Amino acid sequence: MAKLWGGRFEAGLDEKTEKFGASIAFDQKMARQDLKGSLAHVTMLATTGILSKEEAEQIKAGIKKVEEKYENGEIDFKIENEDIHMNMETYLHAEIGAVAGKLHTARSRNDQVATDMHLWLKETLDDTLDKLHNLRQVIVNLATEHVETIMPGYTHLQHAQPISFGHHLMAYYSMLTRDFERFDFNIKHADISPLGAAALAGTTFPIDRKETAALMGFGDVYVNSMDAVSDRDFILEFLSNASILMMHLSRFCEEIILWCSNEYKFVTLSDAFSTGSSIMPQKKNPDMAELIRGKSGRVYGNLFGLLTVMKSLPLAYNKDLQEDKEGMFDTAETILTSLDIMAGMLSTLSVNESVMAESTEKDFSNATELADYLAAKGLPFRKAHEIVGQMVLECTKNSCYLQDVPLERYQEVSPLIENDIYETLKSRTAVERRNSFGGTGFEQVKMQISLAQEALK
Amino acid sequence: MAKLWGGRFEAGLDEKTEKFGASIAFDQKMARQDLKGSLAHVTMLATTGILSKEEAEQIKAGIKKVEEKYENGEIDFKIENEDIHMNMETYLHAEIGAVAGKLHTARSRNDQVATDMHLWLKETLDDTLDKLHNLRQVIVNLATEHVETIMPGYTHLQHAQPISFGHHLMAYYSMLTRDFERFDFNIKHADISPLGAAALAGTTFPIDRKETAALMGFGDVYVNSMDAVSDRDFILEFLSNASILMMHLSRFCEEIILWCSNEYKFVTLSDAFSTGSSIMPQKKNPDMAELIRGKSGRVYGNLFGLLTVMKSLPLAYNKDLQEDKEGMFDTAETILTSLDIMAGMLSTLSVNESVMAESTEKDFSNATELADYLAAKGLPFRKAHEIVGQMVLECTKNSCYLQDVPLERYQEVSPLIENDIYETLKSRTAVERRNSFGGTGFEQVKMQISLAQEALK
Amino acid sequence: MAKLWGGRFEAGLDEKTEKFGASIAFDQKMARQDLKGSLAHVTMLATTGILSKEEAEQIKAGIKKVEEKYENGEIDFKIENEDIHMNMETYLHAEIGAVAGKLHTARSRNDQVATDMHLWLKETLDDTLDKLHNLRQVIVNLATEHVETIMPGYTHLQHAQPISFGHHLMAYYSMLTRDFERFDFNIKHADISPLGAAALAGTTFPIDRKETAALMGFGDVYVNSMDAVSDRDFILEFLSNASILMMHLSRFCEEIILWCSNEYKFVTLSDAFSTGSSIMPQKKNPDMAELIRGKSGRVYGNLFGLLTVMKSLPLAYNKDLQEDKEGMFDTAETILTSLDIMAGMLSTLSVNESVMAESTEKDFSNATELADYLAAKGLPFRKAHEIVGQMVLECTKNSCYLQDVPLERYQEVSPLIENDIYETLKSRTAVERRNSFGGTGFEQVKMQISLAQEALK
Amino acid sequence: MAKLWGGRFEAGLDEKTEKFGASIAFDQKMARQDLKGSLAHVTMLATTGILSKEEAEQIKAGIKKVEEKYENGEIDFKIENEDIHMNMETYLHAEIGAVAGKLHTARSRNDQVATDMHLWLKETLDDTLDKLHNLRQVIVNLATEHVETIMPGYTHLQHAQPISFGHHLMAYYSMLTRDFERFDFNIKHADISPLGAAALAGTTFPIDRKETAALMGFGDVYVNSMDAVSDRDFILEFLSNASILMMHLSRFCEEIILWCSNEYKFVTLSDAFSTGSSIMPQKKNPDMAELIRGKSGRVYGNLFGLLTVMKSLPLAYNKDLQEDKEGMFDTAETILTSLDIMAGMLSTLSVNESVMAESTEKDFSNATELADYLAAKGLPFRKAHEIVGQMVLECTKNSCYLQDVPLERYQEVSPLIENDIYETLKSRTAVERRNSFGGTGFEQVKMQISLAQEALK
Repeated sequence: MAKLWGGRFEAGLDEKTEKFGASIAFDQKMARQDLKGSLAHVTMLATTGILSKEEAEQIKAGIKKVEEKYENGEIDFKIENEDIHMNMETYLHAEIGAVAGKLHTARSRNDQVATDMHLWLKETLDDTLDKLHNLRQVIVNLATEHVETIMPGYTHLQHAQPISFGHHLMAYYSMLTRDFERFDFNIKHADISPLGAAALAGTTFPIDRKETAALMGFGDVYVNSMDAVSDRDFILEFLSNASILMMHLSRFCEEIILWCSNEYKFVTLSDAFSTGSSIMPQKKNPDMAELIRGKSGRVYGNLFGLLTVMKSLPLAYNKDLQEDKEGMFDTAETILTSLDIMAGMLSTLSVNESVMAESTEKDFSNATELADYLAAKGLPFRKAHEIVGQMVLECTKNSCYLQDVPLERYQEVSPLIENDIYETLKSRTAVERRNSFGGTGFEQVKMQISLAQEALK
Repeated sequence: MAKLWGGRFEAGLDEKTEKFGASIAFDQKMARQDLKGSLAHVTMLATTGILSKEEAEQIKAGIKKVEEKYENGEIDFKIENEDIHMNMETYLHAEIGAVAGKLHTARSRNDQVATDMHLWLKETLDDTLDKLHNLRQVIVNLATEHVETIMPGYTHLQHAQPISFGHHLMAYYSMLTRDFERFDFNIKHADISPLGAAALAGTTFPIDRKETAALMGFGDVYVNSMDAVSDRDFILEFLSNASILMMHLSRFCEEIILWCSNEYKFVTLSDAFSTGSSIMPQKKNPDMAELIRGKSGRVYGNLFGLLTVMKSLPLAYNKDLQEDKEGMFDTAETILTSLDIMAGMLSTLSVNESVMAESTEKDFSNATELADYLAAKGLPFRKAHEIVGQMVLECTKNSCYLQDVPLERYQEVSPLIENDIYETLKSRTAVERRNSFGGTGFEQVKMQISLAQEALK
Repeated sequence: MAKLWGGRFEAGLDEKTEKFGASIAFDQKMARQDLKGSLAHVTMLATTGILSKEEAEQIKAGIKKVEEKYENGEIDFKIENEDIHMNMETYLHAEIGAVAGKLHTARSRNDQVATDMHLWLKETLDDTLDKLHNLRQVIVNLATEHVETIMPGYTHLQHAQPISFGHHLMAYYSMLTRDFERFDFNIKHADISPLGAAALAGTTFPIDRKETAALMGFGDVYVNSMDAVSDRDFILEFLSNASILMMHLSRFCEEIILWCSNEYKFVTLSDAFSTGSSIMPQKKNPDMAELIRGKSGRVYGNLFGLLTVMKSLPLAYNKDLQEDKEGMFDTAETILTSLDIMAGMLSTLSVNESVMAESTEKDFSNATELADYLAAKGLPFRKAHEIVGQMVLECTKNSCYLQDVPLERYQEVSPLIENDIYETLKSRTAVERRNSFGGTGFEQVKMQISLAQEALK
Repeated sequence: MAKLWGGRFEAGLDEKTEKFGASIAFDQKMARQDLKGSLAHVTMLATTGILSKEEAEQIKAGIKKVEEKYENGEIDFKIENEDIHMNMETYLHAEIGAVAGKLHTARSRNDQVATDMHLWLKETLDDTLDKLHNLRQVIVNLATEHVETIMPGYTHLQHAQPISFGHHLMAYYSMLTRDFERFDFNIKHADISPLGAAALAGTTFPIDRKETAALMGFGDVYVNSMDAVSDRDFILEFLSNASILMMHLSRFCEEIILWCSNEYKFVTLSDAFSTGSSIMPQKKNPDMAELIRGKSGRVYGNLFGLLTVMKSLPLAYNKDLQEDKEGMFDTAETILTSLDIMAGMLSTLSVNESVMAESTEKDFSNATELADYLAAKGLPFRKAHEIVGQMVLECTKNSCYLQDVPLERYQEVSPLIENDIYETLKSRTAVERRNSFGGTGFEQVKMQISLAQEALK
């Protein structure tokens, strides 16, 4: 067992707590945003006469030099400078001396960090929309090729009714379109400038928050300074939206994994999206799909992490809020890469059309056809359903399918059944005839694709 | 230890699994929505000629009778009828006989339950918006009374700068306004009709989904039938929005609990929103605030529950989806009641204005004033900050505050400091002068209130 | 939009807040425990002379009458009596008059509710262990029947190596055994009596906490009164353990759902554990398995809910803690039923042995055999692995399997390969020979079963 | 909007998917464990005759050289080598050539990675127990100094009854002791060797799993090979235990933050554990406590992340499992550092004893004394409670406390009240007299400390 804390810790005390409290290890990702915010701030300080033109020009020149250094990889982030703001200011000071100290007039790290995060997330949301748009297009392209590819449609993972593979794919298009709409809505609450809220209460200096907001490209400014520094809704929205997105991708990946299995053999992944085994030479594993499915966990975790952090936190800024960043960065990285990989995986997928189609010939997924046939001829649906259930049972006992039952037998069961039943029972017919709006009928799938093409323009 | 399952379970087998699989215990909450959907469905079946006018009229009359029974509390929900759909249909059958079996033509329980949930959530979203509107108004009213009530503004739960209590309250108004916007956006994805998607693939009957959608008051229809029956995004959005809302309320409640404490004594709750102790006769506990704070947990839990359910679920309907309802119902009940209780608690709160104000006179929350004062006179802010830090330390040693330091001493420290410093150091002055946009200055708080009043109209 | 709160709410104020604050709707589940605790308490009050023998006898008689009423279903729980404690005390008062007021001497609802929950959870843990024991036995029985049933073993849902179905089942036995150990450890922290901690600080009365603990059957007493009333670790442990258990069951159910699919057809569920479709007459859905899989969500949610409630709650009792019960009750109900259903489903499952076995003959899951064969003859494993990879590729191109490659071809590839390779490549041989400790070899599976039988005794 | 995936991605395809699939960025933390496992494995391969002595010696020498390189920081981990296993093997190959390929005989990366993680977590659990032991000792030391320091005891954050500060501290000691027990139990399921399970089914080579287990210091071996490679319970237990621990620390930190506030002033943190503000020169913020409180979020998130990953994953290994590591590493880092910081913060804390004590003199926290006083004289407790409630109300109206009420008035209220009531009402007396087992009475606190000292030996 250890000696007491007192003894062994003192020596490294400053170092340990310094490191524990510092955020520079991760908030350096916002270096560009931090400089952009400073540039806007100092510009405004001159416009409003808080700083002189000369002072402002000196500081702006300094900021630009620091930016150059950053882009050239010449910045050495230091833990003793705690965070991105102090690290940048230290470099600025090294460039231009004492006048650097005037940059922090009328602002605080509380509004500064909030500004950086809004800027960062706005850019990330743009990237997300871009990649979502791309993946939706990839899906539409694949669906276009497979409007008439027949496959079993599942409920409860049981064959339910034959469907168009294009239709199945377009279901994911619909999900991702809602994801797109959510991330788009997310911009509304990211696109608000907190700068000028200062520590929590605003400032006595005659600043112009609308000017800095405009210079940074924000569409709006926070109307309450305490809200400005303590609001993290825009991140929570991002994490929620990302969780729902990953949920969709995890469903898609689950299906791809099933489709790649020996039992299904519906699709074959490109080698670029598969891997082998160190012990089993024959393996070709859908690793990328498994990883994306698994990564839903980390994104859910990030969401719940931040919800927990925020729970019952009094106003305004508390250090707990420093825990808002890593989950946001990790989530962004995860979803952006997952969207890319997903698009790549689908673009390079081979579809084993005949396997899919044949799979609908050795099952009872045409049972609804028979029931609908009877109902269309006037039998109450509940009664029709009952009759078909009995026929399925009978077939199971005789090891045959509905299409194998002779007409005589059908007519014993119900005189409503005529010879056209065999055409009706074909998978392709079953799919084609499901032409209700949004159904799997080929015309409906084409309609969906055409709406999608329009939307993606 | 128990005997083996085989022996003891067989007897009650049907009952156990029946109960495990049944949803009627909770989905009966959607009885009205289920009947509304059936009414729309049968109306459309007649319009499109799928049923005859007479059949449709019989069924409609039957549905209305069942509805009456329901409203009169004469429906006895039965577990053997599994869910709300079968329970309702059983009653319908009892009313009108075999023709009842025709109602289920061209639909499935998969699209039916999705329809019920969309209808139910749409109504709940309306209620939520209503109650959010009300709470926002209550906050604005309270803020209006307290524009000039001075209190300490906190960061890190330390006194930071004096602020207006009205300003503090308006921060919550801003949060709740974003909540309002989120729930309002939520309607977009709830307001889509899945009816007609049938089991998963649409139907061969010539149904008119737009007619049923219009009859039920939906603004849109799902364009993909598989998405229609397997989409639960609208619920996840609701649970996410509710989680963020509860997070806001938990923060507000945390503050109210602090403000009620012996140490703060900033506010006094009405007796109606407090309770006593069974053992400590003097206690007056802020129970309602504690409960709301605690209830953030159940709502977070409901969100996480459904995200877990949906993770990696293949298309289309799976029985797992039955787990989508209880969390939604519980969340709705929780947020609607919490919003009511919150509004009641705030409406009946007494504010101890003098305690709040005095609390800002025995601290260093005016230190920023001195720093800004020096910076405004041209000292680099970082230098000003340093000087003030030393003065605070000096005061702490002499057990006095900044307003107690004699002018001579100030002028030794910096000749920039003149006699007007004492007015500057007053809390009220400090608040009043923070007139940057969105700051705590009285004019800014009034501006916020006036924007809010406009928005709430 | 609604009128302001003030207007419409006042009327029903007491009722609304009363209902919001009351716990009787759910804590009535602990009626028996509450009475048991009161009985122990009053017994001790007499032993220690705090109450007279007569008083204690009167109260005990009263408690027993209330208990009788409860067992006869004659108790009418009332919201105005808030919780189970006050409801029970009200009945006691009705039975025996003012002396009932002496029961609450030297205790508080804070220690009383904690006591009830410990008692309740202890019983639940016993039930959980019982049902876990039973399910483990069911698995062992099934495994015993299937030691030599061959099936594909999967990694990445790809056929990896042939295995014994019994072996596969015993993996779940191992998981459930760890679950058993965790719930058993859970008892340690549930089996501690908080009674006598009073509100938070203990009492001035000369109570004997060890006596009440013994009377209630507790093995230990809390040594710190503040911890006693604010500790909910024992519930969090239960929820964590239940989450891990449900994770295991969700994995098992996922597999059962796969095995029931058209593509696998490995098993057939008993009708009692399947259901049909309202629209597709042929469907036989593994509903129970899907539901259990889905119910992992609600249990995870309950865990996360309580973790959130407890986060950053100051000592000692806070009303937030009232939110500890519903998640615990719901979790208990969920796991106990899921364990039963699981046991029933497995006990009545038909295994399609030939389908399973044949499935290992049309794949490359014997590729490792060839690699190991070569390695055993001295080729470095990495080299052997490479050769086999090439052979698999060659077979794929020629549409054959490894067992179909002629000996000449093998000997070209490597002279180490001899005629015994064909025996080696058989699935049954592959399984049988994996006789390393804990492997799928028949002897190893039997060893596992025999250890399990020993452990279950 | 972006161009289609096809166009822009192809180029970097391999790189993107390679990076997405690689784990070397984080699993390099297990380099030592990986080498340790390999050393044990090769030793056993020689013992059992699977490799020759010479081969084994060559490989062992190679492993030791790689280890040296690693310790000297001379290893350059490469993404193209994917994970820690392949990176290490590549170096081994560079050292000793083709014979390196024999090391992987009779094992797979599936059992190898599981082995590494068990080894890594076992060490982490030891560290955790060590640091928990240390923090418990720090608390006991502080409690020892403050047995007779009087402070208000809170329920609902309201003054409830005066207590000993030492008693309050010892509540946390109790919580951390349970944490200790949980992490200790966690070892049971971490201390099991999966090595030899190979890919999933064991191996045909005559390996000796017990030998490798012993060589690596494991107490047990997995008895089922599929369980061995797919089990992550030991990590989930760790994450659950860590979540409960962080919940405890978040409660403690919440209290420290309150105690540091202007309103409480109960304690003063050492400068080493506080920070200032960039804008408010007077601030001294309890940053470390806030951060620890906030970090509960990330640990909860990590737990839920892994629970999600594991949900409904079929056996045996799936790539999703790669998502098990980062959360484990992050959690370990978080709790180990938090425990250190916590110990440091408490060791250097100044307690403002007089402020604490005085705070109990200006409240009604002695109300229970009066009630107990009356009950002890025979009044039913419920009646006593009522009388005291009235007295508190009367005092509130007269702006005085119970100790200020003249004896005459008391005797009007109840003749049972005599002059000794004033001694009874003193905070110190109230604390001292709460001598029931585990109560706040000084003797009881000393008893707790002495039990703790015993346990910590």
